[in-house]
Amino acid sequence: MSPDPRAPARARRLAIALVHHPVLDAGGAVVTSALTNLDVHDLARSARTYGCDAFYVVHPVDAQRALAARIVDHWTTGSSGTRIPTRKAALALVEAVPTLEHAERDLAARAAAAGEPSEGVERWVTAARALARPTTFAEARARLATPGPPVLVVFGTSWGLAASVTDDATVRVEPIDGGFGWNHLSVRAACAIALDRLVG
Amino acid sequence: MSPDPRAPARARRLAIALVHHPVLDAGGAVVTSALTNLDVHDLARSARTYGCDAFYVVHPVDAQRALAARIVDHWTTGSSGTRIPTRKAALALVEAVPTLEHAERDLAARAAAAGEPSEGVERWVTAARALARPTTFAEARARLATPGPPVLVVFGTSWGLAASVTDDATVRVEPIDGGFGWNHLSVRAACAIALDRLVG
Repeated sequence: MSPDPRAPARARRLAIALVHHPVLDAGGAVVTSALTNLDVHDLARSARTYGCDAFYVVHPVDAQRALAARIVDHWTTGSSGTRIPTRKAALALVEAVPTLEHAERDLAARAAAAGEPSEGVERWVTAARALARPTTFAEARARLATPGPPVLVVFGTSWGLAASVTDDATVRVEPIDGGFGWNHLSVRAACAIALDRLVG
Repeated sequence: MSPDPRAPARARRLAIALVHHPVLDAGGAVVTSALTNLDVHDLARSARTYGCDAFYVVHPVDAQRALAARIVDHWTTGSSGTRIPTRKAALALVEAVPTLEHAERDLAARAAAAGEPSEGVERWVTAARALARPTTFAEARARLATPGPPVLVVFGTSWGLAASVTDDATVRVEPIDGGFGWNHLSVRAACAIALDRLVG
């Protein structure tokens, strides 16, 4: 069989994560943000659209992870799953985990279970501000088309990911710049654009 | 002065609209949807990022337009405008109008006031389902780079724009397809991706 010409050229297992801690507040302090219902929906829908394996909601507070699980249940096995069945396939990707390391271990385990390369899951971080040694979207897309370990693309809530998350990253993706001198997209918009540029 | 090499190749005045009526419900009936606060914020932020002139919130109900105006006031002249000043530049683009025709007339008036071509504002509609005679994003981007009348890119809430809106359109942009057989993006994500593909 010839490959589907419309299939994206992607050689890596891919997942996304939305971090609620450690993130920055407006003053640059490290804080924990609250779960936002529409973040769960929108990032799950974008993840499903671009063939991600999982969407990790990273939150250290048990009650907030329980809330995420309750939202997912409502849209998969609950009444809204019946009302809007297409939403199930997106929300089913959501995994609430306490730390980013938990997400990375889970993604490695998924790759291992499928007999794929699983060592050295790559953490790719995104930011609205320019980080040190940024990778362009074109370079990141090419890297994703080259066989290797799974990739976890990480987004931050509030004023963005803390340095402890970005310093350890394999790839720091360049900021999304529309070319009009203002880049304060919502994380819902930024995730959608990033996945479209990397995979679409 | 040489042009900024990073400036997008865009020759048209551009704006976006989010329609709450006439839109479809799950059964295909024409309905009116309720205003969603995060739609106002997210589409305004995407519009500002990609240099749109205006973001028209189209709603036939006076109280819903008043609510939109109150959200805008809170984030421009109100307390949140002081707390997060960057948001002002985005929310200031919002204009609540009762019909799409009001939006098109306002956009024409802006072009006329600037001495630009203002006759025949082009309505470009978007949809998750395939519309008749679709235009690819590459073709639409090229058209935007060719001088001509202003362009209004129109997004629908609920289950999408009614036929009375799409039938009259100059351009019906192709659906966003991630390549994985599922296209149920949120309108917040779809608008972000569409603007990035057209202008970014």
